Amino acid sequence: MTYPSSPRTEPTRHRERVSYDRATVHAVLDEAVVCHVGFVVDGRPVVLPQLHARVEDTLYLHGSTGARAMVTARDGGLDVCVTVTVVDGLVLARSAFHHSVNYRSVVVHGTAAVVTDPAEKAAALDALVDRVVPGRMAGTRAPDRKELAATTVLGLPLAEVSVKVRSGPPIDDPGDLDGPHWAGVLPLSTVAGPAVPAPDLVPGIDPPAHVTTWHR
Amino acid sequence: MTYPSSPRTEPTRHRERVSYDRATVHAVLDEAVVCHVGFVVDGRPVVLPQLHARVEDTLYLHGSTGARAMVTARDGGLDVCVTVTVVDGLVLARSAFHHSVNYRSVVVHGTAAVVTDPAEKAAALDALVDRVVPGRMAGTRAPDRKELAATTVLGLPLAEVSVKVRSGPPIDDPGDLDGPHWAGVLPLSTVAGPAVPAPDLVPGIDPPAHVTTWHR
Repeated sequence: MTYPSSPRTEPTRHRERVSYDRATVHAVLDEAVVCHVGFVVDGRPVVLPQLHARVEDTLYLHGSTGARAMVTARDGGLDVCVTVTVVDGLVLARSAFHHSVNYRSVVVHGTAAVVTDPAEKAAALDALVDRVVPGRMAGTRAPDRKELAATTVLGLPLAEVSVKVRSGPPIDDPGDLDGPHWAGVLPLSTVAGPAVPAPDLVPGIDPPAHVTTWHR
Repeated sequence: MTYPSSPRTEPTRHRERVSYDRATVHAVLDEAVVCHVGFVVDGRPVVLPQLHARVEDTLYLHGSTGARAMVTARDGGLDVCVTVTVVDGLVLARSAFHHSVNYRSVVVHGTAAVVTDPAEKAAALDALVDRVVPGRMAGTRAPDRKELAATTVLGLPLAEVSVKVRSGPPIDDPGDLDGPHWAGVLPLSTVAGPAVPAPDLVPGIDPPAHVTTWHR
C-alpha cells in the first residue's frame, strides 16, 4: 500500500530516493525517538523537537494545554510539517563532494487538530508512552482526570506524506576510484546503556524487561 | 559567554531548562549528526533534515545550487529556524504523565544568506565534512571548481539562539513515590559499528583512524 503523492511531497531532486510506501513510512515513524515539528508564527518558521506516536494512519503529538502551539491548534488546527529522521550511517567517499549520509526521513504535511474524543485522546497518550518504550504503559500509573486535562493531544492524518531513503555505499566519480583514499560506510545506531534507577526508587524494584531489553 | 535573548528565544515554559550559554550551544551543534531546517513556502512550514557545520559564531548549511531553498536564499536570504537535537536518555516515571526525555536542543532563528566569498565557502565545506567525521578532509580529494559551483553554502549567524536541556531522573508526584513501578533513566547514545568498505575500494586500503575511532 502507498500514500498518494501531492505537489508538496513530489521530489524535485533524487527522485529515486523518495517513496510513498506505507510500511516504510510507518517503520520510520515508529523507530525514531523524536520528531521535529515545524509551524509558522507571525510568518516565520519555528521548529521544535517533540515526541510522537502513530496509530494506524494518524500521527499524534502532545503538549501542555497552555503551550502556544496547542492554543493555536484549538482555533481551527495548526498547519504543520512533521519530519522524522533516522540516521543509519555516514557515507565516506573518496571525494569530499560525494560524502553523504545514509538515512530514512519521513515528512508529513497537514493540519494538526485537537483530539476531543476522550477515548481517542487516552489511546493516543498510551501510544505515546508505548511507542517510545514498548510495554511501558503496563508498568506505570495511568493518567488521571487532572493530568488528562493538562495535556492537549493533536492528531495529524497521514495523508500528505513521503519517505526519503539513502542507503548503500558511496558513489564516487570514475576518476576517483583508484585514488589513495579509503571509502565506505560507517554504520550508526542508537543504543541504550544500563538503566539508572531513580534516586528515590523504593528498594527492591528491579528494572522490568521493557527497560532491560529496549532496543532500536 | 552567553548569547542575548530575544522575544523568539525567551521561554514560555520550563524556563529553568533554557540557556544562552555559548559553550553549551556549540557543543550541541557540534555533536549532532543532522539538523532540521524549517522555512516557509507559500505560507506553510517545511522541515528538512540537513547536515550543518559551525565555525565560530556562524552555522553553515549547504545544498545543490538548483535546490528550491538555495534558489530562494539567493534572493535576499532565507528565513529559517534550525533545530538541532541530541537525545540523551528516556526518562521513565512511575506515572505515565511524568515520562520525559533527557535531551539537549538548540534552536537558531535568523536569515540564512548565500556565502559568496570563495575562501569562506571552501572553509565552510571543509567544516561540513570535518564536523561529521573529524579529520576526514585530510583523507579525501578536496572539491574542484565544478563541484564548488554545484554547491551553494548558506551562512546563518548564531545571534538569535537558545539551548534547552533536560537532564536527570524522573520527577514524580509525591503520592506516586512508593508505588510499585520502576522509575529511572535509560541512557541512549549513538554508536558506530565496524566500517563497511566500499565494494569498489582498491584492495589494501585500510580504514584510517578517523574512521575506526569515530565516536559521539
